[in-house]
Amino acid sequence: MPQPPASSRPDRLSRIAEREPQLRAWAHLAETDWPQAWPARVAGTVSGLPFGVKDVIDVAGMPTRCGAQASDAGPRAFDAACVSALRAAGAVPVGKTVTAEYAFRTPGPTCNPHAPAHTPGGSSSGSAAAVAAGMVPFALSTQTGGSIVRPAAYCGVVGFKPTFGLVSRAGLASTCDSLDVIGWHADSVATATQVGKVLLPAVADGAAPLPALPGLRVAVVDWSPAATLSADGAATLARAADRLRALGARCETRVPQAALRELMAAHDVLMHYEFARNLAPVARRAPDGVSAVLREAVTHGLAIDGAQYRAALAVQRRLRTAWSALAGDADLVLTPSVPGAAPAGIAHTGSPAFAKPWSVLGWPCLHLPLGKDATGLPLGVQLVADWENDFTLLAWGERLHHVLFNEEK
Amino acid sequence: MPQPPASSRPDRLSRIAEREPQLRAWAHLAETDWPQAWPARVAGTVSGLPFGVKDVIDVAGMPTRCGAQASDAGPRAFDAACVSALRAAGAVPVGKTVTAEYAFRTPGPTCNPHAPAHTPGGSSSGSAAAVAAGMVPFALSTQTGGSIVRPAAYCGVVGFKPTFGLVSRAGLASTCDSLDVIGWHADSVATATQVGKVLLPAVADGAAPLPALPGLRVAVVDWSPAATLSADGAATLARAADRLRALGARCETRVPQAALRELMAAHDVLMHYEFARNLAPVARRAPDGVSAVLREAVTHGLAIDGAQYRAALAVQRRLRTAWSALAGDADLVLTPSVPGAAPAGIAHTGSPAFAKPWSVLGWPCLHLPLGKDATGLPLGVQLVADWENDFTLLAWGERLHHVLFNEEK
Repeated sequence: MPQPPASSRPDRLSRIAEREPQLRAWAHLAETDWPQAWPARVAGTVSGLPFGVKDVIDVAGMPTRCGAQASDAGPRAFDAACVSALRAAGAVPVGKTVTAEYAFRTPGPTCNPHAPAHTPGGSSSGSAAAVAAGMVPFALSTQTGGSIVRPAAYCGVVGFKPTFGLVSRAGLASTCDSLDVIGWHADSVATATQVGKVLLPAVADGAAPLPALPGLRVAVVDWSPAATLSADGAATLARAADRLRALGARCETRVPQAALRELMAAHDVLMHYEFARNLAPVARRAPDGVSAVLREAVTHGLAIDGAQYRAALAVQRRLRTAWSALAGDADLVLTPSVPGAAPAGIAHTGSPAFAKPWSVLGWPCLHLPLGKDATGLPLGVQLVADWENDFTLLAWGERLHHVLFNEEK
Repeated sequence: MPQPPASSRPDRLSRIAEREPQLRAWAHLAETDWPQAWPARVAGTVSGLPFGVKDVIDVAGMPTRCGAQASDAGPRAFDAACVSALRAAGAVPVGKTVTAEYAFRTPGPTCNPHAPAHTPGGSSSGSAAAVAAGMVPFALSTQTGGSIVRPAAYCGVVGFKPTFGLVSRAGLASTCDSLDVIGWHADSVATATQVGKVLLPAVADGAAPLPALPGLRVAVVDWSPAATLSADGAATLARAADRLRALGARCETRVPQAALRELMAAHDVLMHYEFARNLAPVARRAPDGVSAVLREAVTHGLAIDGAQYRAALAVQRRLRTAWSALAGDADLVLTPSVPGAAPAGIAHTGSPAFAKPWSVLGWPCLHLPLGKDATGLPLGVQLVADWENDFTLLAWGERLHHVLFNEEK
């Protein structure tokens, strides 16, 4: 896991200048929009930190191109709510990061910082890659299926998806109202927590002090109805569980097949039904400015039956409050973020199968990078907590990351 | 209730030209954006109908000014999802209707079509007034507290707020993510239903055939924790209930005080907490371009305690699925939309107290205009149904409107 130096304007600028020509993490960089007097760095806060913003989220004075030829690309008059809150806290948005076309399937030009011929994952590819390359300590991202935890895993950085609904989406180009969540990639769990303190005031006071590690109960969910875990992925998960057991935590493997299958099927319906309605305005007005993949998704989604959509919403409502159906009496779920290391090629962004069920549930998810495979590509695990337990998850994440990461070295 | 002639382009144009100078219902009218060949009118559908769009919802080629001096007023590249769907169905957006500043408290210049010195209600003032004046057969609107049913009541038109979450909000300037709903004002329940067939495909197949009127069970909720019903308002509600009883329906008065108080309190917290975060970007960047009321709402809302917000969300989650706590075993709730007829003055938009609890619940609401007071100002009632029962509500609304409206004449 990269450990960038404490941020400062010149350091970051030189890192971007040096690596961007190969990495292509940025859709827009607006030096002229940076403040003349850079805000003072205040340790333990985001003040003075530069950050990237996925190019589906508005930043005042910058375009929002959504990774698409067809977009409303004029400079935005106002920040999105999340950007405004971070700016008010002293962080500085330095540019827009590359996204897959409308945060869907067609990737941008970003390469994996660990292996340029491999995908960085998507759709928040630029945010994860920019953080992995040490260009910024954190970047705002979004997840509808696996768009935060997947690029976090492939790029080897921390990725955090908060509880659904807690971060305002004002100023986000919506794709799926019942799934879209704004989250972030970060160079450490500590940085991710500092961002959370600004963007999650609703739950910032809610975390109880953590018990000792031997009191922790972990449900290890090592199965997906739609993907097979690679040998490296399985070994990483098993090592993490073994290490936690060795330190006294209870780690029990669970395979809640029925619930995971229901959630996967619900995700497919919710995403396609809503994406089609939200992107139809673009596909209708500028069909030549979007990919065939996007046009076909709109056509397909508009044809989904209303009853099927209502049933998917009902699955979401029922299982969101059913932590025990997935996790029993555990405090946390330990599960893969992705099937394995980043696949070769940048035309596809890899499988979101391990992320989608948790996206439907809206529970907070945290990707922790843990070592690398034999070719130098990052591996890691995902931790999931119950609704609104964002800071408990971040606190456990920080503690476990130290334990697990030290073990991997 | 006005009964405009079957729509056609020249009729509507002349009506707008004739009444707009006094009424001021429109923030923007773009004749040049109208199609050369007006789509054919197809009875029983929206095809060929002109419509207005509240100026917080995007229409391609038109500005979105949000009733504010500070707004991103460049012409939009794309329609909002709801506008695009109606356009694809053959309806024609002819302009943007006046809204209170960011759909909040500070009204625009629109007058009440029945009495120019009285408020048309808000925040969807222009939409309700334009429909009441026969300028358009329907107009898109939004409700966060009472912004659809209140202007519907004061202007004497049908107002429909669908179940929360079913109409895509892509292209809407968000104010409160857990409350904002796109709905519409219409010249009849039949027109409102035709719009619903386009914008609510998720539930359009879900309505069971209605039983005979004597089988209907109605809960009459004639109380609000935050407003007193006027004599005219109480008499209108009582006459409607008496008439339904005379036709064999069961109408029982219910006063679910505890639930209504909880919902009112939750509304206050949800709205202010979310509004502040969503409008802070505007208030911070252009403080002189927004009202003092808006700036103060942002300051107030940013200070709301996280635990209080979580508690309000929990009230919403709990009561949304508790129809019986509010309505017992009734099929419909019959309740006032507003305390009485439109108050004098256009600097305030009247009380939203009778609408807010149902906005928190997210249940579909329908305002039916029923006669006028001694001064010629409209009166009416609100019908509410359970979650996703939008078309059952519209079907009952159409039947009851005939029964009740004929009685009033």
